[in-house]
Amino acid sequence: MSSSDIFIGETIGTAVLILLGGGVCAAVTLKRSKAQDAGWLAITFGWGFAVLTGAYIAARSGAHLNPAVTLGLAIDGRVDWSDVPLYIGSQMLGAIIGATLVWVTYYGQFRAHLTDPEIVGTPNPSEGMVDQTATPQAGPVLGIFSTGPEVRNVVQNLATEIIATAVLVLAILTQGQTKGLGVSGTGVLMTAFVVVGIGLSLGGPTGYAINPARDLGPRIVHALLPLPNKGGSDWGYAWIPVAGPLVGAALAAGLHKLAF
Amino acid sequence: MSSSDIFIGETIGTAVLILLGGGVCAAVTLKRSKAQDAGWLAITFGWGFAVLTGAYIAARSGAHLNPAVTLGLAIDGRVDWSDVPLYIGSQMLGAIIGATLVWVTYYGQFRAHLTDPEIVGTPNPSEGMVDQTATPQAGPVLGIFSTGPEVRNVVQNLATEIIATAVLVLAILTQGQTKGLGVSGTGVLMTAFVVVGIGLSLGGPTGYAINPARDLGPRIVHALLPLPNKGGSDWGYAWIPVAGPLVGAALAAGLHKLAF
Amino acid sequence: MSSSDIFIGETIGTAVLILLGGGVCAAVTLKRSKAQDAGWLAITFGWGFAVLTGAYIAARSGAHLNPAVTLGLAIDGRVDWSDVPLYIGSQMLGAIIGATLVWVTYYGQFRAHLTDPEIVGTPNPSEGMVDQTATPQAGPVLGIFSTGPEVRNVVQNLATEIIATAVLVLAILTQGQTKGLGVSGTGVLMTAFVVVGIGLSLGGPTGYAINPARDLGPRIVHALLPLPNKGGSDWGYAWIPVAGPLVGAALAAGLHKLAF
Amino acid sequence: MSSSDIFIGETIGTAVLILLGGGVCAAVTLKRSKAQDAGWLAITFGWGFAVLTGAYIAARSGAHLNPAVTLGLAIDGRVDWSDVPLYIGSQMLGAIIGATLVWVTYYGQFRAHLTDPEIVGTPNPSEGMVDQTATPQAGPVLGIFSTGPEVRNVVQNLATEIIATAVLVLAILTQGQTKGLGVSGTGVLMTAFVVVGIGLSLGGPTGYAINPARDLGPRIVHALLPLPNKGGSDWGYAWIPVAGPLVGAALAAGLHKLAF
Repeated sequence: MSSSDIFIGETIGTAVLILLGGGVCAAVTLKRSKAQDAGWLAITFGWGFAVLTGAYIAARSGAHLNPAVTLGLAIDGRVDWSDVPLYIGSQMLGAIIGATLVWVTYYGQFRAHLTDPEIVGTPNPSEGMVDQTATPQAGPVLGIFSTGPEVRNVVQNLATEIIATAVLVLAILTQGQTKGLGVSGTGVLMTAFVVVGIGLSLGGPTGYAINPARDLGPRIVHALLPLPNKGGSDWGYAWIPVAGPLVGAALAAGLHKLAF
Repeated sequence: MSSSDIFIGETIGTAVLILLGGGVCAAVTLKRSKAQDAGWLAITFGWGFAVLTGAYIAARSGAHLNPAVTLGLAIDGRVDWSDVPLYIGSQMLGAIIGATLVWVTYYGQFRAHLTDPEIVGTPNPSEGMVDQTATPQAGPVLGIFSTGPEVRNVVQNLATEIIATAVLVLAILTQGQTKGLGVSGTGVLMTAFVVVGIGLSLGGPTGYAINPARDLGPRIVHALLPLPNKGGSDWGYAWIPVAGPLVGAALAAGLHKLAF
Repeated sequence: MSSSDIFIGETIGTAVLILLGGGVCAAVTLKRSKAQDAGWLAITFGWGFAVLTGAYIAARSGAHLNPAVTLGLAIDGRVDWSDVPLYIGSQMLGAIIGATLVWVTYYGQFRAHLTDPEIVGTPNPSEGMVDQTATPQAGPVLGIFSTGPEVRNVVQNLATEIIATAVLVLAILTQGQTKGLGVSGTGVLMTAFVVVGIGLSLGGPTGYAINPARDLGPRIVHALLPLPNKGGSDWGYAWIPVAGPLVGAALAAGLHKLAF
Repeated sequence: MSSSDIFIGETIGTAVLILLGGGVCAAVTLKRSKAQDAGWLAITFGWGFAVLTGAYIAARSGAHLNPAVTLGLAIDGRVDWSDVPLYIGSQMLGAIIGATLVWVTYYGQFRAHLTDPEIVGTPNPSEGMVDQTATPQAGPVLGIFSTGPEVRNVVQNLATEIIATAVLVLAILTQGQTKGLGVSGTGVLMTAFVVVGIGLSLGGPTGYAINPARDLGPRIVHALLPLPNKGGSDWGYAWIPVAGPLVGAALAAGLHKLAF
């Protein structure tokens, strides 16, 4: 696989993944979106089909779209270690592009949402701020960009991300194809439904980052975008959806080497 | 591919697409439908399986069912430019037939809905009209036929349609088959889920036309049908779901040529 | 295909189809079911996967499971006319078995539901009967067995069943396989999603029988079962979900012969 | 198939099945989960994709993941009887590991839920215990681990589990592959959707164990875990989701031998 294949496939594929994945969070969250309050099933299927669409488009690079997947495949010997930096860099770039496109697509909805006094509170603190977030560090639209815990507990939050990512990477490693993710139609479909399943089953506590680029890239975009009343980017949590998935991928690759 | 293949496949296939796609909007919107208020997930899966069914039936013509897809394939060199007018004409004809069949299928529901004073208001304006639409130009059932924006903003609305269609066309162009859409079972299934994904993720602001025929054909039918109290057809918006998808398809085809 | 293949495949396959299809209606309708009020999306996916499961099991007979499908395939020349009576007889037998198994599976739920005064009214008519059905002819659980219209209008109801069945049969006939329904994994999956799509999009007015055996067999079981307070079986409507699908299948087969 | 293949595939595969299956029940049930109240459709798709993911990973052992499936395949002659104990033992071990991982993943949510006075009642019985369960024997989170009936009736509960498992095993036996479950992509996908269908259609009365290991393993974990206010493990019901599925599998295998 050439460097250009990796760069183009991973950048465009991850951009599409984050555009659609962040998009469904915007669609379900924001005021004046036709999909507002469509619920958790919409979010999980939305992210699953985001994986499907991104992986479909990124066939030429093996469609990792996720540093944890790249790490797992490298440990398993299916990706050269020398290609890993290019994979991860392209994924980060793609994630930043994708999150920016979410903002473009939902521009008017972001504006309507973030200027609604019921959501962001009034500028006069004596009337009390409306708090709609689980944690004071997180702004009212951060969940469209990055994940966050419902119960803030470093050990549990890390454990949840490790376990969920280990399931993902184990499913990908046992796909039984020799190189890459096996981006045949059926392979992509299976992986997409695995991701829907992980979301439905293991997404409740932290919002299932299971992908460092998916969380860190959009968090950077949240920090940089000129959104009114956007609140904090919760940088104190940011290391968990990076470290957890990488540890989970390493564990899955180790288990796969040992057992399979 | 013969002209008769194109005409028959695209006309019947697009008619089925719009019958099922418009049908799910009618099912979820209208009074005295068993599916009333079934929600956004029902609408997006309904449109996805409308694509699946229409594409399945239209295999012989390559199952474009969408002028934007035809344009993208023509730019990419997979469809002869001389066939493009026949493709688009057949798609428009099919869309008009499909939207008319939605009206036949939901005849009693349209009547019940449009004669309900709570929905269409009373004829005496001194009691106040009930306004249930985002924009005064759009009638209470226009959403069953055509798309419309939640926040009316030409730049954002165009951008949303451009981005969403670019994702669709990029997914189709990277499907890696030499001619047409690759209407194998798996190919159709993948494209259907891509469309569900686009709806879930990018449909919130404008209702994701992503297909000029899907929007313009039914809008013409809405304008012509003898529905009581149907309200306006919002012709002021009509150019956006035509222009946006065509620009998006061209951008995707350009990106595909450049990068892939 | 031997007579024994047809009899076994169609009887068992249709029994499974109706057990699962009637089952999801019971699950969503009845008191003390974990799935009560799970909504229209649950019903349509439930019926789709009922088709998937029944068709999967009935591969040996071509998995028609539906007299309208058998008629369409016979007109198209893919099934011998001399086999048609055995197909339809087996489908009717299977439907009766399946509907009976729904009653066994949901025995306690039927009892709880039909002895609840809020649902079936009090025996003292002076306090007024609770009317929860669209039509006085239909009992409170008839919808678990058979279909019924939301707006009772012979012409529209027939038209809806004709159109919906024509879409189904056209999709099956264009599947491009030479004999039977093509009960490969992918073929079955596609047909199942076509049925989900028809349900979401065209099921609103009449509940999409699109299969004479699916409607008539369970209606007979409803008439015979010793259920308390079950109400009428609405025989006045019973001919529409038989005639409509057969006409729709014939139209689809004719269109297919003409156009494809 | 070697003993090591069976042990590794079934243990890891069943652990993933129960982690994801129990996980979706935790996600939908527990306080401070992002998926709380996501509904029955989320539960049934969650379990279906749990099967998909577990079966995918357990390809090397034939992906039974269920003593009832192993029994059905053994009766049908596709699995050696001498391998049956290892299959079932590995499945039980995997189920216990999986249920424990659910607890780890949702640690903070379990704690929040089980210390909420509105859910578990106050320690002062004079104020009255809040009863949120169908049966006094079952604690407030038992449903995350094991199944239980909405209407407690031994005959009906057994019948429901027998019928639902017979459908599952019949679908697997007719899959037409010579050894194991045919863990090709499409085969796994089909089986997953069959399980979603069984859940939607036949899950209402008892919660569809259809797998002795899926019910008994997590029930043991529920009994052993140091959860506050967890209530009883309902051992009086525990034999039904073991016996019912085994009888259903035997009936399906018998019917398959007789008829197919």
